[in-house]
Amino acid sequence: MGTADTELELKVKAAKAASRRMSYLSTDIKNRALNNIAGDLLAKSNDILAANKLDYKAAEESGMNTAMLDRLLLTEERLKSMAQDVMAVAALPDPIGEVIEMRTLPNGLVIGKRRVPLGVIGAIYESRPNVTIDISSLCLKSGNAIILRGGKESIHSNSALSKLVQEAVTRAGMPDGAVQFIEDTDRTLVNRMLKMGSYIDLIVPRGGAGLIKFVKENAVMPVIAGGIGVCHTYIDKSADMDKAVAIALNAKVQRPTVCNALDSLLVHKDIAGNYLPHIAAELAEAGVETHCDEKSLSILKPVSNLKLAPATDDDWGKEFLSLVIAIKVVSSFDEALEHINRYGSGHSEAIVTEDYDSAMRFLNEVDAACVYVNASTRFTDGAQFGLGAELGISTQKMHARGPIGLKEITSYKWIIFGSGQVRP
Amino acid sequence: MGTADTELELKVKAAKAASRRMSYLSTDIKNRALNNIAGDLLAKSNDILAANKLDYKAAEESGMNTAMLDRLLLTEERLKSMAQDVMAVAALPDPIGEVIEMRTLPNGLVIGKRRVPLGVIGAIYESRPNVTIDISSLCLKSGNAIILRGGKESIHSNSALSKLVQEAVTRAGMPDGAVQFIEDTDRTLVNRMLKMGSYIDLIVPRGGAGLIKFVKENAVMPVIAGGIGVCHTYIDKSADMDKAVAIALNAKVQRPTVCNALDSLLVHKDIAGNYLPHIAAELAEAGVETHCDEKSLSILKPVSNLKLAPATDDDWGKEFLSLVIAIKVVSSFDEALEHINRYGSGHSEAIVTEDYDSAMRFLNEVDAACVYVNASTRFTDGAQFGLGAELGISTQKMHARGPIGLKEITSYKWIIFGSGQVRP
Repeated sequence: MGTADTELELKVKAAKAASRRMSYLSTDIKNRALNNIAGDLLAKSNDILAANKLDYKAAEESGMNTAMLDRLLLTEERLKSMAQDVMAVAALPDPIGEVIEMRTLPNGLVIGKRRVPLGVIGAIYESRPNVTIDISSLCLKSGNAIILRGGKESIHSNSALSKLVQEAVTRAGMPDGAVQFIEDTDRTLVNRMLKMGSYIDLIVPRGGAGLIKFVKENAVMPVIAGGIGVCHTYIDKSADMDKAVAIALNAKVQRPTVCNALDSLLVHKDIAGNYLPHIAAELAEAGVETHCDEKSLSILKPVSNLKLAPATDDDWGKEFLSLVIAIKVVSSFDEALEHINRYGSGHSEAIVTEDYDSAMRFLNEVDAACVYVNASTRFTDGAQFGLGAELGISTQKMHARGPIGLKEITSYKWIIFGSGQVRP
Repeated sequence: MGTADTELELKVKAAKAASRRMSYLSTDIKNRALNNIAGDLLAKSNDILAANKLDYKAAEESGMNTAMLDRLLLTEERLKSMAQDVMAVAALPDPIGEVIEMRTLPNGLVIGKRRVPLGVIGAIYESRPNVTIDISSLCLKSGNAIILRGGKESIHSNSALSKLVQEAVTRAGMPDGAVQFIEDTDRTLVNRMLKMGSYIDLIVPRGGAGLIKFVKENAVMPVIAGGIGVCHTYIDKSADMDKAVAIALNAKVQRPTVCNALDSLLVHKDIAGNYLPHIAAELAEAGVETHCDEKSLSILKPVSNLKLAPATDDDWGKEFLSLVIAIKVVSSFDEALEHINRYGSGHSEAIVTEDYDSAMRFLNEVDAACVYVNASTRFTDGAQFGLGAELGISTQKMHARGPIGLKEITSYKWIIFGSGQVRP
């Protein structure tokens, strides 16, 4: 075992040891730690920005593209916004300690489920240094110890930020070891980390599809990663046209590069002739390219100034992540449902309808993390849902589904108050 | 692909298709299905017992031992008891459809989490044919489709029972395909089943350690399996002696072969000299063999009629599953805590104490699925906890911890009622 391996093991074990005390820390200490982090982000901005400059220069010299460079860049303004986000998490209710379903059994045992942290969360992430702070604030507020393993490109920034976090939390009275940073960017270390199932309770990968795939395939412990979002909006025959236009437009163009953006629009045949030209005109004005099935193509062809193309089989079930939409005319509610349950990725699906029965059936029968009536799928987001923040959006059914906020990185333990009971 | 493979695939796909309608079936239909199963277990007992006779005979001829033969055997009496268990599950509240945390956001969106089934649950189990009925009743009540794959030894019994279940649920109006039985006992089929992650949402293995290990190592989908229970009881210096004796005895001997039975007893040094002889005498009378650390050995040596042996290092952290106990004298509460968090398997841990602070610290600081004050760890059980029944007891922290009842084999989806909201 090399030095880096030994160091990794020591750090992971230290996090595990710290996680014991982390699990019953007072909310006061956790909030103090978060407020310290927020304060230090402003007070120590010079150090952070200097470290970030080193990363930025190296990245520039290596020929990194402008978009990536921008993701890497920290500024006084961005540090301020990071500090605000940390304070927002500090202001959220502490999920830990909540006791649910508490009751007295016939034999007098008083039992309930008390919410507890998961333990140690390992974060493996790329490029954006603010992730160091995002993940730290969510994990620490929920009483979890953390192991941070950022990418090579932002090593100086992440190192400076994690030192800041370590100092801030120690000053608040959190146990030493609660925050670990893996300095060594050797990729084999990630692989070793993914095998440490007895010390790390959960791995959170943040980054490109390649990283997420690698982590999912190699981790022996549970993994929570943002899911692919193939999102549909179905315009029912009873839909209100204004709502339909506004919702389709917002879901597609408000931020097309994210998982909750609209990919396929399904329109009922009875209103397609009337509604589609309006919707398509608004989409085109926002720069959207439209891939049409045969029926929608025949409706939209006469309309001028549209960017139309015939849809191919690949367009159904595709996450475009760009200003492209697929449109299909369906003959019935059931056809829409079939299509969604076949091609959806279980992320976010919406119906626009004024019909009570269609709304209820849609909520019942669509199998997805978030099912909407008369609203844009763009709302699928921890902050929008009132969870304050999120680590990602889960499309799996086990443990947590939809936005991963503070509660979703907790577990529970049964606590049982007895007075000498034995089992008969 | 062989015929058996094709058949497996057809069945798994049929279950997936059925799971859609299963997810929003009325409670009435689910209860009717369960009551039909209970009724048929009595009405068709001749067929079931005849099928069971075939298995029993074959097992006898193959030289199966008496204990295993007894597990395989069905009788009129046992069928009656199985029917009662099914009716007890029918009488439980339906977990599906419950909406939690529903609220209105500032923008008028009404959002909440609605409890939904997981989808398709695959059960892989050995020998005891009643598992076919146990698993069916829990999964069906919670709206999940099921794929049953029993062991070779009970193939005739399981086949007859699963046909009974299929007929009973169809008669109740559940969708065809909700219950699938894999007739072919070829072991490679299990391996293929474990790879069908896009059709099977959860695998539940029930059986020996070998089966569970194989399933955990090979399944691509989540697995819930009963965990190892290395359970401690700590007798604090402030413990009431009568409670201490009764709880230690009950936890060890009431049913020593199960996971929530006591393995290691920790006794505070201040009361060890007084309490231990009483506890050890009761244990010995119940036939328990005692493995003692040095201090407890010196206390117990003078006592007559005890079965004593010095403890070895292997005794700490061992699940005995028999009438053996390890006893250790500890110098402090903290030493007990250290020992439990080091050697426990995160299943069930208990303290016997009259001291408020010790009780609270134990509940806070012990990291286990179930943490008890002044009660026997033998209560860790779905039925005892008021969950009605259980599929097993989880020692993992993700998704569900402790007894796996109806709620624990569900997921949720966010439902969002809008009135045209778009994201600014």
